[in-house]
Amino acid sequence: MINYRIVIKLLGVILLVMGLFMLFPLGTAAFYKEPDFKSFLYSAIICISIGLPFFIVKPSIKEIGKREGYLIVTLSWVVMSIAATLPYLLSGAIHSFGAAFFEASSGFTTTGASVFNDIEALPHGILLWRSLTQWIGGMGIIVLTVAILPLLGVGGVQLFSAESPGPTKDKVHPKIKETAKRLWLIYTALTVILFLILYLISGMTCFDAVNHAMTTMSTGGFSTKNASLAHWDSPIVQYPIIVFMFLAGTNFTILYFLLKAKIKKVFYNEEFVTYLIGTIVITFLVTFSVICHVNEGLEKSFRLALFQVVSLVTTTGFVTADYTTWSNGLTMTFFMLLFLGACAGSTSGGIKVVRHVIFFKNTILEFKRLLHPRALLKVKMNKEVIPEKVTAHVMVFLLVYLMVFCLGSILIMRLNGDVALPFQTALGAVATCIGNIGPGLGAVGPVYNFSILPDASKIILSFIMIIGRLELFSVLILFSPSFWRSN
Amino acid sequence: MINYRIVIKLLGVILLVMGLFMLFPLGTAAFYKEPDFKSFLYSAIICISIGLPFFIVKPSIKEIGKREGYLIVTLSWVVMSIAATLPYLLSGAIHSFGAAFFEASSGFTTTGASVFNDIEALPHGILLWRSLTQWIGGMGIIVLTVAILPLLGVGGVQLFSAESPGPTKDKVHPKIKETAKRLWLIYTALTVILFLILYLISGMTCFDAVNHAMTTMSTGGFSTKNASLAHWDSPIVQYPIIVFMFLAGTNFTILYFLLKAKIKKVFYNEEFVTYLIGTIVITFLVTFSVICHVNEGLEKSFRLALFQVVSLVTTTGFVTADYTTWSNGLTMTFFMLLFLGACAGSTSGGIKVVRHVIFFKNTILEFKRLLHPRALLKVKMNKEVIPEKVTAHVMVFLLVYLMVFCLGSILIMRLNGDVALPFQTALGAVATCIGNIGPGLGAVGPVYNFSILPDASKIILSFIMIIGRLELFSVLILFSPSFWRSN
Repeated sequence: MINYRIVIKLLGVILLVMGLFMLFPLGTAAFYKEPDFKSFLYSAIICISIGLPFFIVKPSIKEIGKREGYLIVTLSWVVMSIAATLPYLLSGAIHSFGAAFFEASSGFTTTGASVFNDIEALPHGILLWRSLTQWIGGMGIIVLTVAILPLLGVGGVQLFSAESPGPTKDKVHPKIKETAKRLWLIYTALTVILFLILYLISGMTCFDAVNHAMTTMSTGGFSTKNASLAHWDSPIVQYPIIVFMFLAGTNFTILYFLLKAKIKKVFYNEEFVTYLIGTIVITFLVTFSVICHVNEGLEKSFRLALFQVVSLVTTTGFVTADYTTWSNGLTMTFFMLLFLGACAGSTSGGIKVVRHVIFFKNTILEFKRLLHPRALLKVKMNKEVIPEKVTAHVMVFLLVYLMVFCLGSILIMRLNGDVALPFQTALGAVATCIGNIGPGLGAVGPVYNFSILPDASKIILSFIMIIGRLELFSVLILFSPSFWRSN
Repeated sequence: MINYRIVIKLLGVILLVMGLFMLFPLGTAAFYKEPDFKSFLYSAIICISIGLPFFIVKPSIKEIGKREGYLIVTLSWVVMSIAATLPYLLSGAIHSFGAAFFEASSGFTTTGASVFNDIEALPHGILLWRSLTQWIGGMGIIVLTVAILPLLGVGGVQLFSAESPGPTKDKVHPKIKETAKRLWLIYTALTVILFLILYLISGMTCFDAVNHAMTTMSTGGFSTKNASLAHWDSPIVQYPIIVFMFLAGTNFTILYFLLKAKIKKVFYNEEFVTYLIGTIVITFLVTFSVICHVNEGLEKSFRLALFQVVSLVTTTGFVTADYTTWSNGLTMTFFMLLFLGACAGSTSGGIKVVRHVIFFKNTILEFKRLLHPRALLKVKMNKEVIPEKVTAHVMVFLLVYLMVFCLGSILIMRLNGDVALPFQTALGAVATCIGNIGPGLGAVGPVYNFSILPDASKIILSFIMIIGRLELFSVLILFSPSFWRSN
């Protein structure tokens, strides 16, 4: 039997927290004396008044089992996204629920795909709310990675993320609550540092600096400007953003080790080293192409390449140029980058480097297994053997990821009705949503947005974002009959 | 140490056989008194005179190990393809080696993608040679599946193909040589029956009937007409072709059981049942879309849908209409069909139904494993447990398949230089080549051909066809360092 009481109680708490977070944009709207003030007031009242009773009521049994865990994880993101539509709808910034739900889940999943044609016309409260949803989403992901997924056994990567570098030894701290607190501290501290850099050194306005600090550290990618980061075509803005996108894509445990100057442990971590070297190599190759195809100086070419590569690999999704117009081969390369993802245990989405590394190592071993069928060859990571179960789970993860991508693409093409949706727009939209990146290709490319898609497609894409963000299985397991069978 | 002598001897034998097979189009050219006679004469002389010495010479050691096996398998297809370019180049039908190699490997891999703009302008000898390469390719695949792959352990599917329905029991015949002979007999007999039907009942000319009988049974898809099977817009031609495409995509062991009227064994085979039901369901869905989008009668709509679905699923690649113009959503569906494939142990290429079934079952089990981490849950097929090793191999196969697809797509886009190659053309070209189907999408779609691609792309695609045809690992293992390391 699933303990629904505890599920509902926790969702109530989340609603309450949402209501409290709405006080920030409410204050902002009041400060700027803008009309969206009322919409935040009403939204906060609705969320708090629904959430409060659940917070006070105590369920008879406090135990949270696996099934409750799965339900809470998935429904949290759905409830948060529904709650976050309120300000959008009440302020009239968005007129349809489908579009508002898309914008809200794009926030909480730290995707960064938007339905707004003119972002700069939005009131400050709404802009801050968009950024805040991403920052909250990033926070949620940290708890999820550290505290919840390891218990649920989802993703097969938790072993190498929260408690890395080794799967069994060297825990950051034995108590999960303590660990979460430390990681939150790092997350918040980095956000504050980036804000200070952007405000004091880069010369952004205070408001822009706050928003970009939040959407960078959450690898979200919402901007306050229509041109995204291309708005500030200067090294002094873009390089700090690049560095912090990269940090946000790093396993937070690694950041903790860095902080403690345990450099050896950092470079002992295979995922981080692959992430670092991979980013450098891809940037190098892309820079070369940019120099050949785009008529810009060396520094600018390098910066354009580095920014786009880091932005896509970390699944942030900031944009400094329409890179889909650079060259034929590059567009396909950028499309493939949508399937990378940065480190597990970071705020980045997507497949993540560790899974690619395990896949790569296992494939190499498979060739050896063919030649030596009787040898027992297991994948090693950070010098420790990975249990076969985990390797198998990672393989299934990769395939299910691609399956959701394929089925999503068919649906998006079909739902567009008789208006021909170009092939690459559909594939790009689904790839960028399941990977929580932001910009896609073609009509949903880096300088466009998702407003052109019908509402049905927006809702499907919202769920694809949530499925991707919650490591697939947390969501998909709810559709498995064995989940609902009592035993 | 690899026994290169035996490898070279066998390749010589293959060259000799190629030379002998060239006598058929030579005879045809003589019969029609066409100028390509000389090109076949010279080609045959070259092949036989190079091959004969190797056939006579006996290597000191006759033993063939795994490594020799892999080398022979891959090099056979390469050597056959190179030999088959001779008539194309000498007759002047094709002017560049890249294009000729593409046409030749498209034949031997039973793909059916072509570089010819005007097929009907070709002399009869060349037309027969194209069809013959496919028929030989189909024959080669039967030997490969029955005799060679099981020894090499590649693909993980051999367990369920040659010796099905169960992985250990119910062998068609204990002796592999006998089995191969029986399957060849079925293959040849079905080709003859189809020829008789097409010639006597459907009203094709004798020449067209011979060619289409060969390219249907090999699931090849080369036609003697520019419009492919759309040339004969009549049920009496198209329905027999549909039935025989379906048979060619069926596990040949199943056909043997059918012949012996062991119906129970046929419907006991999960792969066959999935293949049958899947084809029916997809056809039903596509027919519905065709009725909505194409202005044709019910029978014609059904026939169009059935023909395209069977042609793509069996990886034949015959065409009766430009189905990429039917509707937006259908194009994506047809694109996804390129990743299906029919039964293992048939002449069809691609991923194959059995692997999809194992993937699907294993994914369902993975959800159960998450809820019951200590339970030992293994995939079952035809009521027998599949060893974990085989399941793991199938997962790796699927991922490597998609990886080759991705890397191929990037290469094809890059190699096209500054001429913009549409996204869907590149993806369609690679998907159709690795799956050994034939028609792609966009500029290489069902009513176009591959001549527009640069020679470098044609050669890359030729190797992708060979990689796909030989179940990936047979070819890719040659690039693994452990293959060349002596131990």
